[in-house]
Amino acid sequence: MSNAAPVPTRWKCVCAYDGTHFKGWQSQLGGGAVQDVLEKTLGRLLGVENLRIHGSGRTDSGVHAHGQVFHFDGNWRHGPDKLLVALRGSLPSTLQVKSARPVSSEFHARFGATGKTYCYHLHLGDADPFQRPFVWSVYRPLDLSRMEAAAAVLRGRHDFRAFSAVNGTERENTVRTLRRLSLQRRGRSLRITAEADGFLYKMVRSLVGALVSCGEGKLEVEQVRALLEGGTRTAAVHTAPPQGLFLMKVEYKKIAKGN
Amino acid sequence: MSNAAPVPTRWKCVCAYDGTHFKGWQSQLGGGAVQDVLEKTLGRLLGVENLRIHGSGRTDSGVHAHGQVFHFDGNWRHGPDKLLVALRGSLPSTLQVKSARPVSSEFHARFGATGKTYCYHLHLGDADPFQRPFVWSVYRPLDLSRMEAAAAVLRGRHDFRAFSAVNGTERENTVRTLRRLSLQRRGRSLRITAEADGFLYKMVRSLVGALVSCGEGKLEVEQVRALLEGGTRTAAVHTAPPQGLFLMKVEYKKIAKGN
Repeated sequence: MSNAAPVPTRWKCVCAYDGTHFKGWQSQLGGGAVQDVLEKTLGRLLGVENLRIHGSGRTDSGVHAHGQVFHFDGNWRHGPDKLLVALRGSLPSTLQVKSARPVSSEFHARFGATGKTYCYHLHLGDADPFQRPFVWSVYRPLDLSRMEAAAAVLRGRHDFRAFSAVNGTERENTVRTLRRLSLQRRGRSLRITAEADGFLYKMVRSLVGALVSCGEGKLEVEQVRALLEGGTRTAAVHTAPPQGLFLMKVEYKKIAKGN
Repeated sequence: MSNAAPVPTRWKCVCAYDGTHFKGWQSQLGGGAVQDVLEKTLGRLLGVENLRIHGSGRTDSGVHAHGQVFHFDGNWRHGPDKLLVALRGSLPSTLQVKSARPVSSEFHARFGATGKTYCYHLHLGDADPFQRPFVWSVYRPLDLSRMEAAAAVLRGRHDFRAFSAVNGTERENTVRTLRRLSLQRRGRSLRITAEADGFLYKMVRSLVGALVSCGEGKLEVEQVRALLEGGTRTAAVHTAPPQGLFLMKVEYKKIAKGN
């Protein structure tokens, strides 16, 4: 037997949030980010000062999540179910930890992610008060066949620098494989689903902005191809507003059961 | 030709609101009710001080609407479509006027109503952050067959005084015809639809409270029958919380086209 402190368990958690009133995912100096609220609440429940969580990646202010993933290291002796109940009683109603389970200390929410899925919700015309915080209302008519053609150009393995907010001088690897970029229309709702091995900063909102410009006739499908090949962002690519965007799922290779 | 001011047109409007942050429908001294916001906004657009609107009835603080109806008298020379666009630009995003049309001056939103439909949304277990403002989460298991049996007792023409917040000494006519009281379950969502020629104060929330108590096994179906026949509210009837309730539709006999 040793007198050393017990090795903390690594926990993998999945959370959902209405991003409307959060200052994005990433911790802010003045607080108010999703990460700040989770760290403060988990720290209090586990009796740890300065508890740190690690998200799969940041989401911008106003962006929502159904399946954001984070991990943290800590000692909690009462099992996952009681952790979820304790969190439910402590977190604001706009933030929910949906699952929590002990995993191998090899697991890393950010570096272990092998894929992500986002959905973006458009509304054709004026949305009602219940939908407005969660859609982008587009009032001009959209030509869906042009949007489909542009999506076909964008799918696959490309350098997506022109469709991101990555600084042109950064030497970051900006090649990603966009496995899925699809449109589903239902009545006046249009959902765009994007799935990739990873996304650059503001990439989904840039892709959606470009698709909508194509649908409105402001951008040609061939211009989309030229932008992709040119690798330089221009004023032709608009960034869709944050409130329509939802992080749906983060994938990992496989997660071993905890120690 | 006369020099008198033009006779104002009566307008019938249908509106939707997320009631979370409103102080109910009915005008409050300090403002903040849906009626206050509509009166202020319409008054400004029409250039009328102290414009008054007349709703089909009040909804409590926290209750939502997809189809609340109100009328007002005023002069607007640019047609219904431009009125809707002007309102969209002026109202908060949580409040929407969905339709507006000139009607006969005989039309009255409150006194002309012949029926109303409400929906109440229950969630079986913990709801996610996007549903929470719009459901009542019930954590105990519910026996739906008991709830169905209680609903069958409540349907029809009865004195609903025991299922309202009407003061026992008031001589108000408390007989109503509950044409529909039905349950629709879909996954963990349970929707209760209530349709009647009119509802007493807090009647839908009292009916829902009683149905849930029956489902939880705290109230017997025969007790529901006895309450209905006794006509006196007791502590056995709980009022369901406001956030699950939506005013869906208000019916009128027939509305003549405006002058």
